[in-house]
Amino acid sequence: MANGYNGRILHVNLTNSSWKIEEPGEVWYRTYMGGSNFAAYYLLKELKRDVDPLSEENILIFACSVVTGAPISGFNRYTVAAKSPLTGAFGETEAGGYWGPELKFAGYDAVVIKGRASKPVYLWIHNGDVEIRDAGNVWGKDNWNTLETIWKEVGDKRVRVASIGPAGEKLIPFATVQNDMEHFNGRTGMGAVMGSKNLKAIAVRGTKKLKFADPGKVKEITRWHNDRIKTHPPNVGLTKYGTPGLVKGLNNAGILPTHNFRDGVFEGVDKIDAEAYHNTIFHSTGTCYACSVRCKRRVASDDEKYPLDPRFGGPEYETLACLGSLLENDNLPALARGNQLCNLMGLDTISTGCTIAFAMECFENGIITEKDTGGRPIRFGDADAMLWLIEDIANRRGFGETLSLGVKEAAEKIGNGAEKYAFHIKGSELPAHDGRGKTGMAMGYALSATGGDHVETPHDTAFQKNVGSLESLGILEPVRPLDTDYDKVRYFSLGQKAWGINNCLCLCNFCSVPIHAMTFAGLVDAVTAITGWNTSLFEIIRVTERSIVMPRVFNNREGFSPKDDRVIRRWHESFENGPMKGKRIDEKAFRDAIDLYYELSGWDKEGRPTRGKLVDLNLEWLIE
Amino acid sequence: MANGYNGRILHVNLTNSSWKIEEPGEVWYRTYMGGSNFAAYYLLKELKRDVDPLSEENILIFACSVVTGAPISGFNRYTVAAKSPLTGAFGETEAGGYWGPELKFAGYDAVVIKGRASKPVYLWIHNGDVEIRDAGNVWGKDNWNTLETIWKEVGDKRVRVASIGPAGEKLIPFATVQNDMEHFNGRTGMGAVMGSKNLKAIAVRGTKKLKFADPGKVKEITRWHNDRIKTHPPNVGLTKYGTPGLVKGLNNAGILPTHNFRDGVFEGVDKIDAEAYHNTIFHSTGTCYACSVRCKRRVASDDEKYPLDPRFGGPEYETLACLGSLLENDNLPALARGNQLCNLMGLDTISTGCTIAFAMECFENGIITEKDTGGRPIRFGDADAMLWLIEDIANRRGFGETLSLGVKEAAEKIGNGAEKYAFHIKGSELPAHDGRGKTGMAMGYALSATGGDHVETPHDTAFQKNVGSLESLGILEPVRPLDTDYDKVRYFSLGQKAWGINNCLCLCNFCSVPIHAMTFAGLVDAVTAITGWNTSLFEIIRVTERSIVMPRVFNNREGFSPKDDRVIRRWHESFENGPMKGKRIDEKAFRDAIDLYYELSGWDKEGRPTRGKLVDLNLEWLIE
Repeated sequence: MANGYNGRILHVNLTNSSWKIEEPGEVWYRTYMGGSNFAAYYLLKELKRDVDPLSEENILIFACSVVTGAPISGFNRYTVAAKSPLTGAFGETEAGGYWGPELKFAGYDAVVIKGRASKPVYLWIHNGDVEIRDAGNVWGKDNWNTLETIWKEVGDKRVRVASIGPAGEKLIPFATVQNDMEHFNGRTGMGAVMGSKNLKAIAVRGTKKLKFADPGKVKEITRWHNDRIKTHPPNVGLTKYGTPGLVKGLNNAGILPTHNFRDGVFEGVDKIDAEAYHNTIFHSTGTCYACSVRCKRRVASDDEKYPLDPRFGGPEYETLACLGSLLENDNLPALARGNQLCNLMGLDTISTGCTIAFAMECFENGIITEKDTGGRPIRFGDADAMLWLIEDIANRRGFGETLSLGVKEAAEKIGNGAEKYAFHIKGSELPAHDGRGKTGMAMGYALSATGGDHVETPHDTAFQKNVGSLESLGILEPVRPLDTDYDKVRYFSLGQKAWGINNCLCLCNFCSVPIHAMTFAGLVDAVTAITGWNTSLFEIIRVTERSIVMPRVFNNREGFSPKDDRVIRRWHESFENGPMKGKRIDEKAFRDAIDLYYELSGWDKEGRPTRGKLVDLNLEWLIE
Repeated sequence: MANGYNGRILHVNLTNSSWKIEEPGEVWYRTYMGGSNFAAYYLLKELKRDVDPLSEENILIFACSVVTGAPISGFNRYTVAAKSPLTGAFGETEAGGYWGPELKFAGYDAVVIKGRASKPVYLWIHNGDVEIRDAGNVWGKDNWNTLETIWKEVGDKRVRVASIGPAGEKLIPFATVQNDMEHFNGRTGMGAVMGSKNLKAIAVRGTKKLKFADPGKVKEITRWHNDRIKTHPPNVGLTKYGTPGLVKGLNNAGILPTHNFRDGVFEGVDKIDAEAYHNTIFHSTGTCYACSVRCKRRVASDDEKYPLDPRFGGPEYETLACLGSLLENDNLPALARGNQLCNLMGLDTISTGCTIAFAMECFENGIITEKDTGGRPIRFGDADAMLWLIEDIANRRGFGETLSLGVKEAAEKIGNGAEKYAFHIKGSELPAHDGRGKTGMAMGYALSATGGDHVETPHDTAFQKNVGSLESLGILEPVRPLDTDYDKVRYFSLGQKAWGINNCLCLCNFCSVPIHAMTFAGLVDAVTAITGWNTSLFEIIRVTERSIVMPRVFNNREGFSPKDDRVIRRWHESFENGPMKGKRIDEKAFRDAIDLYYELSGWDKEGRPTRGKLVDLNLEWLIE
């Protein structure tokens, strides 16, 4: 291996305020490459089983990849991982922005955090140096005030800050980590883990220029990729409308999650779709490090009731659905205000929206009443109820205290049949994709180690049209989106590995393989040019398969079993209206597909990767 | 799939002298790509189980690949396959030369032959046209006379002829098919299957220029590859000495098969090694279509006792060992003469040498005596005994009649404990590699669907030094050649797929991946430039895995089971001398490694690919 990659991992122990540097060596870097694999490696190596996720024993990992920080569009993400307080399973959540590249410029590929500080602290990492600083000035503050205060304290506005808001401090199991107010490690409650460690933020600044094995080639790929982004249809759409562009299409297809996942069409869709967005609240576009897609939207409004500040982020598709159609809320300014409240407080908009939808359906069905909610009705379509519930959840007060547990535990606390409307997988609320319209996404939700996860999962619509690079995987014909047959299981498995590449390498789905502007060949060239490794798509997909298998082993160790690999009851019931009327996922066929997936993946009937599969993937250290 | 590949398969029925053309379509071509996959596809689809290999029901396939005939070095091979009369298992054997490309120029990717002609015939395929011609003038003739006669009959010396010699006509189960007197489909007795169909030869001539999706890129890869061949060390060695260059190195390592696989060093090695070869019998070099390696050697001698004709081919490494060290024969001119006799008669030199070695050891141990052999001793080191035995085997006369059965059946016929010295796997004699010195090769021998096969098997020495493109597979560190541990099983499995690419795409190991001058990236580019498919190493290795799984399913269907996946008794016994003294393969550890391989491969404990694995590989049509 010529010109090889070698980097550094920062290990911090908050209990005794110490830190040390690990250089794991090139073979380790090439075996795992980054992101979810780095996280899973440390969680499996160093975390005991059955640990309370909010105890000081949990391990919190911030990880980039060997290619993060290269100036190619989308090569800018990082992951945050730990055992999840929301699910008790493998917790992991990625974000874009500038924080990941900045960590690399500061000299580290990842930060592994153990223990718990005796009082609130933040980490200040600058060009290799590390300080564990008192967070007295920022504890209790929202994310914006935290950011501004830390800028002042370190005296540099170019510092990138990943922080938690009050929700994380209050250990809400769906609290986020976020950076620069518009990039979110949203899912699985990593903000609560950070809070449990008394860690308010990690501020990073680096001026180290990354060394690439072939800088000329990196430049060439960057240019070629940016040119493709300008014309590759899925990217053209993202550049024009961002993710809000999805709202209308999904509604037209009859699968825009509406009324707590009951329906797939939303009457008020025209008021929250991309056109409405751009004609009303849109302020400007934003982007991530070195990315030419510019899919981020910022919003602004002087409205007194629903003021919007462009610094606090604009709603993405998931938020438009979870705080919009899912609640039958067509009040876009209120929706965007709800989004900004979540951002300021550090709440995941997906889990927050799903939890409110759950509450609204419970209210609709008399399972909870105004007696429970402090005298205020919680009805579908009531934007203001959404807003006060967000504030109450973030502050864990009133009925918000119950909802701050997430739908699974809230339903248990409420009782009275509430679990009938508590839609979650492995304890995680669901992103805004209805599995009845895309069985591959449904399989991804069922099988994701983190609970319902829409980022690591293949998109059936891509299979259907066979767009992008799918042919390079040997997917030669369109796959019917509603089936759960052999084709679907095979192509789900291939797609899962293909999309999983982005999780390992910390790339953005929106400019990478398999359906956006990056081709597989281009990606292999990029990894080679950056690292000097003479790699291949075959090797990269093997690395990716580790990122599927290791979290699975983690969850098996924590007691998860095939019964947890399921979707929500509602998806086995037919849509009652819209273009998908009558469509549902057959429960028996779906179970068969999951069982076939196990076998196809080299897992046993209990969904455990076999000894052979572990050996195949150089993971024999996980054989028990 | 733009610019896609679409070709034609010729189906011939000899029973009723008919033929037809199939155009299987692009998805089929891309799913299977060529060679062993095409063969396995037709054998599994169209051959009933339990058929007598020498009955008219057997199906004989000659197959190129989608890239055969491109002017890139090594892209020139074809395979011949059928149910093997030697093993009763999947029979398949590749050859280089010019015949494969000529078939492509004539308009076909493969020829599938069924039935049996009522009297001897040969096929004459010219620019798409097909004639089934009377073979009265060539039946009974040796390969050279057959070639010359057919040239005359069709009136064109540029015609390429794949033919059988008298050995094939006499249904000797290790009879070869060969083309141009120096390229051999040597193993598994395909010549006998051809003979059983009364098919003496297939003559082909085509003037069609192959169309490539990107001709400029094909040219560019050709030049780049030929430049690499000039400097890439393993290729430099092959160009200089051909395969005879291996003799000395293997002897020095203590693993040159000697004395019927008992020993690994041969006293007379200096008399049969590459230097002796080039100083005595060497005449000139030869090559295959468009190949710049030029590894073939031709030999010449006017010696009256051992005359050598440069038209009849020079011994390769396998022959130098099997007619040389294995018999303790250091008489190089006699050895080369034996090789030419085999070529003329159409006998596989590997099986022939192994069978004679078996006879010599039986004689040495009194299991057979001069009473059995017609009064002539058969002693190790007796070159003349080798020569008359070759002639008697080819003519099925005297003791040669017994030996013409191959070691397995000959031992059964001889009885008297002869099976103690009958070394075969699944009924196939072994190429000249001692598994005690390379456990990966031993695994390959044990697991090969065709019995001991040295062509589809990874080379431990490559793993040991980690040469060539192995890092692109994720093999990052040298692997110890003598182990049977997790590393070995994993890297064997990876290597098997990597070497298997050449079997699928009909490429020559000696200029292709993974250790010779072609890189994986170059190969992917070449397949893309030729076919127009936006492929990847991932897709190509999935195609290759089909070529491992389909023959396995074929053998399972024919009743083969894990007990057949074994090596020879001798390799579980220690070498008694040389650098490898004391080294053996532990039988229990080896069994464990095979069992782990099953699991790692997605096969069940009975060595049967699971339903999941078949679905994974688009082979659900093989689920029974």
